[in-house]
Amino acid sequence: MRIDILPTTESIVQAEITGHTAVVFDILRATTTIVTAIAHGCRRVVPVLEAAEAREVAERLAGENIPVLVAGERGGRKIPGFPCGNSPLEYPPEVVGGQTLVLTTSNGTRALNAAAQKARIVLVGSLLNARAVAQEACRLGRNVTMVCAGTQGQFSLEDILGAGMVVLEILEMVEPGWLRLSARQPSALDLTDLAVAALHLAHAYLENPRRAFDHASHGRKLLNMGLAADLDWCASLNTFQVVPVVKNDNGFLSIENG
Amino acid sequence: MRIDILPTTESIVQAEITGHTAVVFDILRATTTIVTAIAHGCRRVVPVLEAAEAREVAERLAGENIPVLVAGERGGRKIPGFPCGNSPLEYPPEVVGGQTLVLTTSNGTRALNAAAQKARIVLVGSLLNARAVAQEACRLGRNVTMVCAGTQGQFSLEDILGAGMVVLEILEMVEPGWLRLSARQPSALDLTDLAVAALHLAHAYLENPRRAFDHASHGRKLLNMGLAADLDWCASLNTFQVVPVVKNDNGFLSIENG
Repeated sequence: MRIDILPTTESIVQAEITGHTAVVFDILRATTTIVTAIAHGCRRVVPVLEAAEAREVAERLAGENIPVLVAGERGGRKIPGFPCGNSPLEYPPEVVGGQTLVLTTSNGTRALNAAAQKARIVLVGSLLNARAVAQEACRLGRNVTMVCAGTQGQFSLEDILGAGMVVLEILEMVEPGWLRLSARQPSALDLTDLAVAALHLAHAYLENPRRAFDHASHGRKLLNMGLAADLDWCASLNTFQVVPVVKNDNGFLSIENG
Repeated sequence: MRIDILPTTESIVQAEITGHTAVVFDILRATTTIVTAIAHGCRRVVPVLEAAEAREVAERLAGENIPVLVAGERGGRKIPGFPCGNSPLEYPPEVVGGQTLVLTTSNGTRALNAAAQKARIVLVGSLLNARAVAQEACRLGRNVTMVCAGTQGQFSLEDILGAGMVVLEILEMVEPGWLRLSARQPSALDLTDLAVAALHLAHAYLENPRRAFDHASHGRKLLNMGLAADLDWCASLNTFQVVPVVKNDNGFLSIENG
């Protein structure tokens, strides 16, 4: 099993990932919010690129009597006029249970759409469900490409950390103790250079993933915006067993529990 | 002081680094070879892009009665017909002392040329002179951009490791103990996300940098080509105090001890 990591949404263009299991990470905060919503009983999440599209899709679904929440974020803030934003804390079970969440964000929904155009199997990753994603990736048995959303086309520490946590969990399943003991590449896995770097990053922050957000450019931005409680939530490792899967549903993407 | 890392030569195009101290890394093996040659008494290294150009420059210098060695590598092997290759072990003091080395390699000389086109101060980095480069970067006091050559446009573990070792050395000078103690960004430095990741990578391999080459795609390729002794040499941390500097000398680049 080969494990690769794409550092930004832009790097998907050149990647050959059709037959792979793709896992998308936008740890702060889109994919964490999606995982939280699904774990809290949300029926499905529809990730769209533009605010206008989010409104249209929400209206269409509401017209079919489907209970819908429409949520959007730009620059870390709720889109003006939108009822909901991109904070995972906005979606406790009593709010999101049974709902369809139509979501547009700056980086994460772009990454989800780009991955779904290239790979048939696309999972949604976060720190909250890293182990569950690792177990599902092993069960599927295909090569794995982790797609990091990044921030405005730049490498994001927290997304590489999230991908690294999944690599770490996979490694612990197939070759326990490797990180401490072996001088060679793990024999059962073929890790690309960025996957090895992400693995060490995950190991460095394993005891305190929250600290990585203090060191990350986007984490510090959100902290300065008063979103410390969001960061605390996004840092909880292996809280949920859900593995949201991206499906193509009559022309728009739909994310449901796999 | 802001510290950034560019993961590949290609990423220089969009970077604003004119007033920065640029440090170029092609750990396996071009910049390690250059550092070794300069430390062993080589008068200067002329990095050129193409084999034909290397021959022309060498002939011109020989015509001026300058003692010259011409060296070239493609795909990890010496270019056919070239007297010297890209192994640092080819350049002990008795071979390279007083010589001008005209060098063309697959990735490293491209990175050096690209960096020299964008930044006024360009240093040559390796594991061998990581501390010396860090000291010089601190003395210069400018923002630092580490330029990793990468391998054929891809992220290279060993180059990020080299850049990370310089970040680690700078951090140990300006804020000792930070890596173990602090929950915040270091106050005296502004590290980008990739610089933080590189720092953790350097910390992970600090006791045994050679092990990183076993985990790196290009390292394993060279190992399979029988170049284990080269890898051992390239992994020696802080062996030399030299800081080679890239200068523009009448239209061609010239690297000399700074």
